[in-house]
Amino acid sequence: MKDIRIGIIGFGTVGSGLAKTLYEQKDRLRQKTGANLTLARVADISITSLPKEYSDVVLSNDANDIFNDPEIDIVVELIGGMEPARTFMLTAIAKGKHVVTANKALLSIHGKEIFDAAVKNNVEVGYEASVGGGIPIIKALKEGLVANRINYIKGIMNGTANYILSQMTDRGLPFAEVLKKAQELGFAEADPTYDVEGIDTAHKLAILMTIAYGLDVRLDDINVEGISSIEPIDIEYARKFGYRIKLLAISRNHGDNIEARVHPTMVPENHMLASINGAFNGILINGDTVGDVLLYGAGAGMMPTGSAVAADVVDISRNILAGAINRVPALSYLPEHIGKPRITPMTDLVCPFYFRVTALDKPGVLSIITGIFGKHGISIRSMIQPGQDAGEPVHIVFRTHRAAEAAVKNAIKEIDALEICSAPTVKIRILNPE
Amino acid sequence: MKDIRIGIIGFGTVGSGLAKTLYEQKDRLRQKTGANLTLARVADISITSLPKEYSDVVLSNDANDIFNDPEIDIVVELIGGMEPARTFMLTAIAKGKHVVTANKALLSIHGKEIFDAAVKNNVEVGYEASVGGGIPIIKALKEGLVANRINYIKGIMNGTANYILSQMTDRGLPFAEVLKKAQELGFAEADPTYDVEGIDTAHKLAILMTIAYGLDVRLDDINVEGISSIEPIDIEYARKFGYRIKLLAISRNHGDNIEARVHPTMVPENHMLASINGAFNGILINGDTVGDVLLYGAGAGMMPTGSAVAADVVDISRNILAGAINRVPALSYLPEHIGKPRITPMTDLVCPFYFRVTALDKPGVLSIITGIFGKHGISIRSMIQPGQDAGEPVHIVFRTHRAAEAAVKNAIKEIDALEICSAPTVKIRILNPE
Repeated sequence: MKDIRIGIIGFGTVGSGLAKTLYEQKDRLRQKTGANLTLARVADISITSLPKEYSDVVLSNDANDIFNDPEIDIVVELIGGMEPARTFMLTAIAKGKHVVTANKALLSIHGKEIFDAAVKNNVEVGYEASVGGGIPIIKALKEGLVANRINYIKGIMNGTANYILSQMTDRGLPFAEVLKKAQELGFAEADPTYDVEGIDTAHKLAILMTIAYGLDVRLDDINVEGISSIEPIDIEYARKFGYRIKLLAISRNHGDNIEARVHPTMVPENHMLASINGAFNGILINGDTVGDVLLYGAGAGMMPTGSAVAADVVDISRNILAGAINRVPALSYLPEHIGKPRITPMTDLVCPFYFRVTALDKPGVLSIITGIFGKHGISIRSMIQPGQDAGEPVHIVFRTHRAAEAAVKNAIKEIDALEICSAPTVKIRILNPE
Repeated sequence: MKDIRIGIIGFGTVGSGLAKTLYEQKDRLRQKTGANLTLARVADISITSLPKEYSDVVLSNDANDIFNDPEIDIVVELIGGMEPARTFMLTAIAKGKHVVTANKALLSIHGKEIFDAAVKNNVEVGYEASVGGGIPIIKALKEGLVANRINYIKGIMNGTANYILSQMTDRGLPFAEVLKKAQELGFAEADPTYDVEGIDTAHKLAILMTIAYGLDVRLDDINVEGISSIEPIDIEYARKFGYRIKLLAISRNHGDNIEARVHPTMVPENHMLASINGAFNGILINGDTVGDVLLYGAGAGMMPTGSAVAADVVDISRNILAGAINRVPALSYLPEHIGKPRITPMTDLVCPFYFRVTALDKPGVLSIITGIFGKHGISIRSMIQPGQDAGEPVHIVFRTHRAAEAAVKNAIKEIDALEICSAPTVKIRILNPE
């Protein structure tokens, strides 16, 4: 029976999850592939021994021991970050090894270099685990929905941010308090910047856009805003309007230009994405043939991510066994058909908005504010003025019809300059209806 | 450039949807595969011409014209039903053609014969469109979740039944009235038996179970109850208890035996499956590695089904181009690892239940009924007795803790034999909590 030999670089959470998966599923994978998928080597700079079930696995502190082993077929990079991950990937590829990674940050910045090198060396790059954890979204886009023009992508792609927003929504607690608790429970990292500021979500959106549209989309192309400035009061007002606040990745294919944005978004409460709570992810894809398809599941974690990495290992193993390397192009479109994107400037964006204006409760204030909105062509759909406390600042909350981002920016600038306005106006975008 | 030539048998809704997809997506598919995927032939007994965009396609009334054309690589069977679909599939396979079908009824009854013939002739069988319409559920199970023991499958797999239940729920209308309207609107067929009696859902569950567990599951193995006896009043009581009624396919892997059932089920209103409304499908898979994954989308329709059929055509085309036929076993497990299932008898099933007892409103009635439940070891979780009209029949509605199906059957028999009970007791299963 044919043996496929695997080396893992980085034996942290995901690395040990993959090892566990390959170990526990070994019989099942043999029954499905007709081959032994064997973990042969692990390289990690910070461990000195492996759990006893891996007694046949060679541990090393030097990734080169994996690259230099001619019997290793597939190298799985699970150390994360830019360097030395990038160098490890390129070295493995140069040595003719197939590579698998969950490193969305690396791919969304250095993806082109890595994928070009893989094509040149006729090896595969698997990256199912880079988006949506265990959800098989990359395969769905590349294969299941292959016969579709992708019209849009809308997704909750970061479990930490979704967990925090869900907790804020359920308990009415402020961001900082929920974040602290999430860190204690292990749902958020010590430095949560990538997760809560939307950067991790943007990494993932860049990858999905590349394969959805056949365009070389990079992190820099994505407009990003995080959730750290969201306040419980806005979650509460959102609820009164019938919305939930979610950190969404949104991309819409306009043909000659493409929206690419990550920001807190008010989602109608009966929308599928509104019901995705806690650390889960949900990704909605619309294709011209299939319509809406949504995939939901655990977006992170040792075992779900291990499931996705293992799926890549199996996929590549099958191609090795069948002599069918790069049977499906790594980025869905053949390299010569991948173009440069033209990203829609945020100032050209049109969507409904939520505003929370803080103003002194004086007669005529509402007239002044709505006058400014009207002057900038912003049409109000509904308004709530919850408190009343003459002479003191109160909230006035607006929901608009579709308005231009540039007009909104100008209107808010004008409103915030008013003497009666005592705090900056809060603006949250509302999901465009289809 | 290599040309893959496709023949379609049956130019009805799905057949013309596939033709449209191959025509509209031709450039995109060429950019992804490096080949021309060309619709070369159509066979249909009831049409005499094709739309003008298919001027290069040869139309025939005889499917043999497709089988006998040596240039045809892939035959797509889209006539549905048992015969002549079965003979067409087997003939195509015998002629060395790869086959694609959306025919769940055929596969859930004659699947083994067809898959065995395909293995013998070294051709592929694609059947993505047989379950979940455009949702890439077959590929997800066979490839994306390959490194998982599947613990359970729970799904809404019939759009017509879900549409009818959604309309009954939203409008409080009786089954017959909603069905009639659905037939007028084209959401239900003239003979709706397969859809509303759960048979179509059972076809699909048999296919999913086969690939999920590596067991040769047939339609006959599935316990099936439909929705035609569901009344608006039960939907209303379900809502009071916090449930929605859905026609669910449920299979749970107990290791030595496997649940296989299709029936109306009360689903907690905050469960993802409860929010799947209208003609949509949603399939929840739990794997030991990945946890819960849910896929949602259009479960039927000309274009969504066309998307799935086209995905199979592309998949097989890629294997032809790469010389990698049957790179993934058609039924996920290699044929020698597919066993016989041991299906859990329904009498062994344990789940919570909903009961609506119709009894005369006399003192002591409740005591008699609850006494019978107690005698059979059925523990009541909550009870509603909505009306009060002394001497007239009223509803008494119960929700139980987990109870054994056999005990429930005996208890209901005893209750229905009481003189004070004026109508048969209605029983609806409640989704087992995880």
